[in-house]
Amino acid sequence: MIGGIDHIAIAVEDIDTAVALFENVLGLKVTHREEIAGYGVRVATVATGGTDVELVQGTTPDSPIAKFIAQRGPGMHHVAFQVDDIHAALAEMKERGVDLIDQTPRPGKQGSLVAFIHPKATGRVLCELVQNRR
Amino acid sequence: MIGGIDHIAIAVEDIDTAVALFENVLGLKVTHREEIAGYGVRVATVATGGTDVELVQGTTPDSPIAKFIAQRGPGMHHVAFQVDDIHAALAEMKERGVDLIDQTPRPGKQGSLVAFIHPKATGRVLCELVQNRR
Repeated sequence: MIGGIDHIAIAVEDIDTAVALFENVLGLKVTHREEIAGYGVRVATVATGGTDVELVQGTTPDSPIAKFIAQRGPGMHHVAFQVDDIHAALAEMKERGVDLIDQTPRPGKQGSLVAFIHPKATGRVLCELVQNRR
Repeated sequence: MIGGIDHIAIAVEDIDTAVALFENVLGLKVTHREEIAGYGVRVATVATGGTDVELVQGTTPDSPIAKFIAQRGPGMHHVAFQVDDIHAALAEMKERGVDLIDQTPRPGKQGSLVAFIHPKATGRVLCELVQNRR
């Protein structure tokens, strides 16, 4: 049901600083930037050839990313797994009693559909399901 | 120079509990287990088809994983990038003044060579370089 890792998300305080570090220190390239106003985040996708790194900055003090940084500091925030059919994946997880943050998919970046699993279901690791636009 | 993401490592309190969660909640499979006594860790590799998830439990109170959990709780610990030639990658980074934890490679799991970059070089995200055994 679950495919490979789509991306890992890193909560950052300033996206331009983070982009510069990933480009200059690791020699990786940012291939996409997007502001998702509805969620109070600004993202930059760092392509690595398979799984992406997604740098995420909160743009409002009450965004989950800003709250995460306030509590724990910047760092790895969540891991996102690809699914072919996010509605089927969520239905199957609900049937098995998996604790979900999102009962139904919501729009993610680049036309994807996403849903988060509650971290208490996965040992405090925040996991996201992503159905990319075909 | 840097290839794709080899794995993301998750610090866990109990590896068997974590393995059960990843297998039962996400439907993923553990394909490798190893105890690396020299570093005080026990690892389980969860295969996803590309980038792996590496569950890591500290086996001694002074292991970096045990210290991380004591400070921050369980969760995502580091991201590992594949390199073809780790000696060349480290030499090139040193030349650019990148702050390294490991000046020279050390043995990782399954015959790999690994080295960590200092998190202050990458915005507090602990990054590892991995040259897998060919």
